[in-house]
Amino acid sequence: MNPMRPNIAGMAAYVPGFQPPEAERFIKLNTNENPYPPSPEVIAAIREEAGANLRRYPDAKSLAPRKEAARVYGFPPEWIIMANGSDEVLNNLIRCFAGEGEEIGYVHPSYSYYLTLAQIQGARIRTFRLSAELKLEEPLTSFQGKIFFLANPNAPFGFSFPLSFIDELASHLQGILVVDEAYADFSDDNSLELVRRHDNLVVTRTLSKSYSLAGMRVGLAVGPPPIIAALDKIRDHYNLDRLAQAAATAALKDQGYFRACIERIRATREWFRSELLALGYEVIPSQANFLFCTPPDRDGKRVYQGLYDRRILVRHFADPLLGHGLRISIGSREEMEATLAALREIG
Amino acid sequence: MNPMRPNIAGMAAYVPGFQPPEAERFIKLNTNENPYPPSPEVIAAIREEAGANLRRYPDAKSLAPRKEAARVYGFPPEWIIMANGSDEVLNNLIRCFAGEGEEIGYVHPSYSYYLTLAQIQGARIRTFRLSAELKLEEPLTSFQGKIFFLANPNAPFGFSFPLSFIDELASHLQGILVVDEAYADFSDDNSLELVRRHDNLVVTRTLSKSYSLAGMRVGLAVGPPPIIAALDKIRDHYNLDRLAQAAATAALKDQGYFRACIERIRATREWFRSELLALGYEVIPSQANFLFCTPPDRDGKRVYQGLYDRRILVRHFADPLLGHGLRISIGSREEMEATLAALREIG
Repeated sequence: MNPMRPNIAGMAAYVPGFQPPEAERFIKLNTNENPYPPSPEVIAAIREEAGANLRRYPDAKSLAPRKEAARVYGFPPEWIIMANGSDEVLNNLIRCFAGEGEEIGYVHPSYSYYLTLAQIQGARIRTFRLSAELKLEEPLTSFQGKIFFLANPNAPFGFSFPLSFIDELASHLQGILVVDEAYADFSDDNSLELVRRHDNLVVTRTLSKSYSLAGMRVGLAVGPPPIIAALDKIRDHYNLDRLAQAAATAALKDQGYFRACIERIRATREWFRSELLALGYEVIPSQANFLFCTPPDRDGKRVYQGLYDRRILVRHFADPLLGHGLRISIGSREEMEATLAALREIG
Repeated sequence: MNPMRPNIAGMAAYVPGFQPPEAERFIKLNTNENPYPPSPEVIAAIREEAGANLRRYPDAKSLAPRKEAARVYGFPPEWIIMANGSDEVLNNLIRCFAGEGEEIGYVHPSYSYYLTLAQIQGARIRTFRLSAELKLEEPLTSFQGKIFFLANPNAPFGFSFPLSFIDELASHLQGILVVDEAYADFSDDNSLELVRRHDNLVVTRTLSKSYSLAGMRVGLAVGPPPIIAALDKIRDHYNLDRLAQAAATAALKDQGYFRACIERIRATREWFRSELLALGYEVIPSQANFLFCTPPDRDGKRVYQGLYDRRILVRHFADPLLGHGLRISIGSREEMEATLAALREIG
C-alpha cells in the first residue's frame, strides 16, 4: 500500500542553511540574517499581545500589517497580501498558475526553493543558466510557461537585473512574472513601480532580513488586485498568528529604525567589499546583504573550512557553478573585521 | 492574459467563523475557542523568546515542541510532525497523496475546509452524507480514492465514531485515512493507538482549542514514519516561528493546567446540555467543546438572531442539513449561564 504521488516520493527536501546547535559560539554569516535586533517597538508589541487573547483566533485578513504595508509601499491594501514568510506566497503563486505538468521557469543559480515548490506541485521546470560572466545563456523572453521567478537582487550572487530588463520581460511573457525581492531593501532600486504597469507582475518581499524578523516568518506580495484576490482565496485562512501580525505591524511602522539598520549594513558591505578586493578576492558588486566572493586560488571549500575552524560560518555551495566561491552575509562591522582577520590568516 | 488555473479561478474562498470587530463586547461562542487563557508558562516562554534572537531563523525541525509532543502522545519523534495549525498538515497530506483529478473523500457535514483544499489541488471530491439521524447514507468502506478525512469528533455535530469503526475503516481503505482530531482532547477516547496498527492512518491535532492557542497557529500530526517523512519534505522549511515553537513547547509541558481546563469545559458542557434539554431543545451528545442543538420550533436562524441581538455570538450554518440548529461553543460557566438566560428570553 503506497498511494504516495510519485513526484513527492521521488523528490528531495529543500535544505535550509545550516543552523549550528550553539549559534552563539559562531559568527554566523551563512543565512543572510540581519546583525541588528528587531526594532524595540516590535518587542514591545509582541509583549503587549502575548496574553489571554492568544486563546482567540487572529484577524484572518491581517488588516493591521496589511494597512501598514500599504502605507510603506504606496499601494492600496487590495494590492497587498501578507504571508507566513514569502515562501508561503511563492508556493501559492505556483498553485494559482501552474498545474501538474505545466511549466515554471527561473534563473539558475538563484533561490533553489523554486525547484522544491515545483516538485511538490508536480510541475515541470525550465531553468535559464547564468554563465561564469553572469550573463544569461538564453533570453528569458523565450520562456513560454505559466510562471517565472526572478530573484532580484539575485541570490547567491547579489547583483541586480536593471528595471528596464524586468519591464521588458514582463511585457514579453505570456505567463506571470514574480520578482522575488527578498533582498531589495538593501538595493538602490526595486520593481514596485513596475507592478502598476503590468497585469502579470508580482513582487514578493520578506521581513526576515531587512526587518530582522527571520524568527517570525512574515512576508508579503504586491501585485494586481485580481492576482492578490486569488492568492487570498487559497492561503491558509489564518496564515499569520497574532504575534506575527503584531510584530509585522510594529516593524513596518518604525521606518526610522529600519532605515538606520539598512544604511549601516550597506556601508559595511561596501567597506568589506573593498577589503576583500584588497586581499585579491574577486567580489561581485552586491545590491543585497551578502557578498559572493572568490578567493585567489578559487577553492571556496578550503576557505569555508578555514573560517569554520575559526568559528565563522559562511555559505559554501556544492553546485559546480558556485563551488569556487563563498556567500558571506554582512554582519556587524565587528563581525566583518573578525572575518577579514581570519581570511588574512587563512590566506 | 489570464493564465490562472481554472480550479483556482472558479473556487470560492473558505469563510472562517465571524470575528466581530469589537469581540470584547460579545460573549463569543461561535469558533470553539477556549474560554480560559493559555497556561502562564506559555506567556512566560513567549516573553523570554521575544528578544534580539528574533533576527535569527527558527529551528527548522521544531525539535523542542516535537520532542514534547512525542512525550505527551507516547510516540518516538519520527512519528510526529509539527505544523503551522493543523490546516497546514491537512493541506500537505492532500499534496502528498492526491494529484489533480484524483479523489478525496470526507463526511458531509464535517469540516468544510477539506473542500477548499481539494479545490486548490484540483482534486475530485466524494462526500458521504450523514442522514438526519446521523447515519451514513453509504458505507465509507466503499471509498476507492487516495485520501479520506474523518473529523472525529465530528464538527459541527460533536458526536464520535467508535474506535472499532475507525479501525475497520483503516483496514478496508486502499488510500490514506486521516482522523482529524481537532476536538479529541475533549473526548473520552481517541485514535492514537490505532496509528501503531495501520500504515495508512494519520491523526491530526491542533493546540488552538484544547491548549487555548488559536491565536498562535500550532498543530501536529502523528503517523507512520514514512508518511511523516514525506510531510516533512514538503512543509515550509521554517513552518513554525520562534514564538510558536516556544508557546507550543510550554503548552505541551504544562499538562496539569491543560487537564484542569479540559475538565472544566467538559463539566460545563454536560451541565449546559442538561439545561438545554430542560428547555425542550434537541441536543446531540458531544465529545467536543461545543454542542449542536435544535430549538423546539427548529428555526436555528431565529434563535441565532435573538442571541446576536443580546451580544451572544454562536454559529448558524446556511447549509440546509444544518439550518434547523446552532453550534454553540462551550465557554465559561458564567458565559453559558448568560446564554441560557438569553435563550429563555428568546423562547
